[in-house]
Amino acid sequence: MSNAARILNPTLRSKIMSAAEAAALIPPGANVGMSGFTGAGYPKAVPLALAQRIEAAHARGEPFRVGVWTGASTAPELDGALAKVNGCAMRLPYQSDPICRKQINSGEMEYTDIHLSHVAQYAWFGFLGKLDVAVVEVAAVLEDGRLVPANSIGNNKTWLDQADKIILEVNSWVNLGLDGMHDIYYGTRRPPDRRPVPINNPGDRIGDRYYNVDLSKVVGVIETNSADRNTPFTPADVNSKRIAGHILEFLEHEVKRGRLPRGMLPLQSGVGNVANAVLSGLIDGPFEDLTSYTEVLQDGMLDLIKAGKMRFASATAVSLSPEAALEFNQNAAEFKKSVILRPQEISNHPEVIRRLGIIAMNGLIEADIYGNVNSTHIAGTSIMNGIGGSGDFARNAFLSIFMTPSTAKNGAISCIVPMVTHVDHTEHDVHVIVTEQGLADLRGLSPKQRAKVVIENCAHPDYKPALHEYFSRALESSPGRHTPHLLNEAFSFLPEWRANQMKSAAE
Amino acid sequence: MSNAARILNPTLRSKIMSAAEAAALIPPGANVGMSGFTGAGYPKAVPLALAQRIEAAHARGEPFRVGVWTGASTAPELDGALAKVNGCAMRLPYQSDPICRKQINSGEMEYTDIHLSHVAQYAWFGFLGKLDVAVVEVAAVLEDGRLVPANSIGNNKTWLDQADKIILEVNSWVNLGLDGMHDIYYGTRRPPDRRPVPINNPGDRIGDRYYNVDLSKVVGVIETNSADRNTPFTPADVNSKRIAGHILEFLEHEVKRGRLPRGMLPLQSGVGNVANAVLSGLIDGPFEDLTSYTEVLQDGMLDLIKAGKMRFASATAVSLSPEAALEFNQNAAEFKKSVILRPQEISNHPEVIRRLGIIAMNGLIEADIYGNVNSTHIAGTSIMNGIGGSGDFARNAFLSIFMTPSTAKNGAISCIVPMVTHVDHTEHDVHVIVTEQGLADLRGLSPKQRAKVVIENCAHPDYKPALHEYFSRALESSPGRHTPHLLNEAFSFLPEWRANQMKSAAE
Repeated sequence: MSNAARILNPTLRSKIMSAAEAAALIPPGANVGMSGFTGAGYPKAVPLALAQRIEAAHARGEPFRVGVWTGASTAPELDGALAKVNGCAMRLPYQSDPICRKQINSGEMEYTDIHLSHVAQYAWFGFLGKLDVAVVEVAAVLEDGRLVPANSIGNNKTWLDQADKIILEVNSWVNLGLDGMHDIYYGTRRPPDRRPVPINNPGDRIGDRYYNVDLSKVVGVIETNSADRNTPFTPADVNSKRIAGHILEFLEHEVKRGRLPRGMLPLQSGVGNVANAVLSGLIDGPFEDLTSYTEVLQDGMLDLIKAGKMRFASATAVSLSPEAALEFNQNAAEFKKSVILRPQEISNHPEVIRRLGIIAMNGLIEADIYGNVNSTHIAGTSIMNGIGGSGDFARNAFLSIFMTPSTAKNGAISCIVPMVTHVDHTEHDVHVIVTEQGLADLRGLSPKQRAKVVIENCAHPDYKPALHEYFSRALESSPGRHTPHLLNEAFSFLPEWRANQMKSAAE
Repeated sequence: MSNAARILNPTLRSKIMSAAEAAALIPPGANVGMSGFTGAGYPKAVPLALAQRIEAAHARGEPFRVGVWTGASTAPELDGALAKVNGCAMRLPYQSDPICRKQINSGEMEYTDIHLSHVAQYAWFGFLGKLDVAVVEVAAVLEDGRLVPANSIGNNKTWLDQADKIILEVNSWVNLGLDGMHDIYYGTRRPPDRRPVPINNPGDRIGDRYYNVDLSKVVGVIETNSADRNTPFTPADVNSKRIAGHILEFLEHEVKRGRLPRGMLPLQSGVGNVANAVLSGLIDGPFEDLTSYTEVLQDGMLDLIKAGKMRFASATAVSLSPEAALEFNQNAAEFKKSVILRPQEISNHPEVIRRLGIIAMNGLIEADIYGNVNSTHIAGTSIMNGIGGSGDFARNAFLSIFMTPSTAKNGAISCIVPMVTHVDHTEHDVHVIVTEQGLADLRGLSPKQRAKVVIENCAHPDYKPALHEYFSRALESSPGRHTPHLLNEAFSFLPEWRANQMKSAAE
């Protein structure tokens, strides 16, 4: 089957093997650094083979689990497969796999949630323990052994540098037209030897096109040929369009007031429907010459580039719908004129984010009336996915915008609550909250001032009376009136109020 | 009285007036940017005169309040005086005055708590509204009108640049030997024109010695002669010494494991007893050639410099005991060889903090078993002081250490709780928690793993059984077991448990 056309280096060519052979080189208890970021560029074969190996070991009554470090979320073939065989003891720094999530929330799997910009440096600092094996997807191996990256960079450079053993998957599905799109920065150091990261514009190239790798560490090379398992694109729903409308109106207002330059500032956008709706809205908007400095290149950004509205996009991964992924792959040579992929320690670097003055737009699970945001936990106890890069961007952004529909579960739950059950972004890091109901501009406001605009502008009309009631009772009875709260009701008030409403309605 | 010996510029000399005359230039409703950072370098005369003016206006039935922006905390002559006459409508970004605090917590004064590194840029971005007047203490006025800074820089550069009108207090108590200690960076820009902040070592000088000021904006110059109102030094108590001991042991361990260079990394330290105890501990410790990159030069650091253990300290303010302040002032010319004072947007700059790899040590009010930290609120509702620079440092530090005695109020309250009532530093930003009981190293751990070490190593023995009980019941009954919680007991469990203990003991 192999013609090894993409593996030009003789040493690595001599290490071509099957996925099962490679998986056999990963011992029980190993920490494995895998490629993969938002479903892009993850290894397609070795994790599945590893899962089979683990399943067989378990069938023999032998313990076999590994620690899995990635860039961010991967796909069912990696997180799902390993979780399914109970093969993952510990996972970091972000995941979105349903089986994985279930195991974390049942207490079977340990999960360490880390700001995406912190992961690589923690590995270098020795904070995460030893990295035994790297399993990294690449697009090709050059004659001299350097590696052409694939559709995501994530933490690959660090895994390749730090791991004792390296397993490469060379995926010939990836169009080599993308050679040159990547910018792998080899200037990072440990303190006290760090120097400025010399990015002043989203399009600045500061690194190498290829990964450099110690060939003696490579223990196996596997050939694959398959597309990333991308998520189908869902057209924006009414609420997403309304949220997008509020944000665009706000940005235009900021330009008029002279607080934003006419050419805007680089955009960062979380993934998902709402984010895509905002980006779609920009296509018909008044802004030209847009740029983005973000984690993920998604459908909406690709559309902006194609429409000539976005001049440049910097990301660490390409995460597209299957149709857009196909188009991107076929036209990679063209898109690389306006797209750079970087390591996530650079795409999410606080230094660069603050310098460029990013407009950050991220989703949330719930926000409270004082502007604290929960991005990760359901009911304060179950993890959804993880904080991802939202903290890197929100803390350091020029404008930190959080967005959500005002209710979840068909209106049964208000996403605006008296007190969030888990805090990922504190009141100090949230400039703007937007729902389909409206936008709350919290800049410069005290907690009590924030509560008024959050309830008035963002809460769903069904929940406004309850939130007003909580706030005014808290104003009266709270021991302190800087951030008025009734601690013994903070979490229960809204669900109980809702239950009473439902009961009254049923009677 | 005036000989104007320190006011060499003729234009500014012609504007010498009394504090009362200057205060008369501040209109009701004005936003006033005052100098002052941790009780250093605040204006000594105009705020008092302004308070008198406000009191008189109120006596006539006229409304008169102002918004007060500073660097950080000031002194009774500023925050206290204005709060006493109910003259401060809005305060930012940090304060520690008891009258001020009372008014904020009674709901009479609005308070906006902001990361100290964010304040100057928010003013430049227009996020805080218009700055009408700057009232800034300096040490002298040069012939060409440039200003010699005094004992703190804080946001002075920004206030002088941004305010419509400027009032200067020239304090001849400050020894001019400190001329040359300051480094005022004029390279900041608004995005998209920002460039790297070129600091690679704590001692790098990147700016000017003096403030540049538009002389036409100066409306009044007042002569003063008085020391900062510094807080007496309290010798370290037993608990502080124990906390210091745990931290020093940990740092030595990290050096042995190769995770910290032998010369350490630059230290940041909050103020107060515990911080001073840690610094004192370093005098007898094995580390040489220490540096610090911090907000405040305090007694402990001065001692390290004098002992030849600390090579260099960078800060934004000098906050010393009265004795140390006198010594520092008398020997300013000598100390400026090893001390730099910078604007707080630079002393607290995320970019520089991450690059230098700071070891950050900050206090807390309560920490929860999962590693979330409350630095600002009593019982979730009353502000204590504010977040200060702890967020700038903790998020971007090489090592983020938080420290506290394990109990407060003579043991009546545990500082380790099931769930903090307010979050300033999330689980993602806390590497180490230390109490006199011991040290919990949370790096790389999942929430459940953290809970075990926090309870075991940090909780007071009186509260360990209760915390164990909460955690094990939460493990059993929590809807999610990633971060197990019993939401309806999270805040009440520990106080109720304690009350029952007390009751049993009394029976």
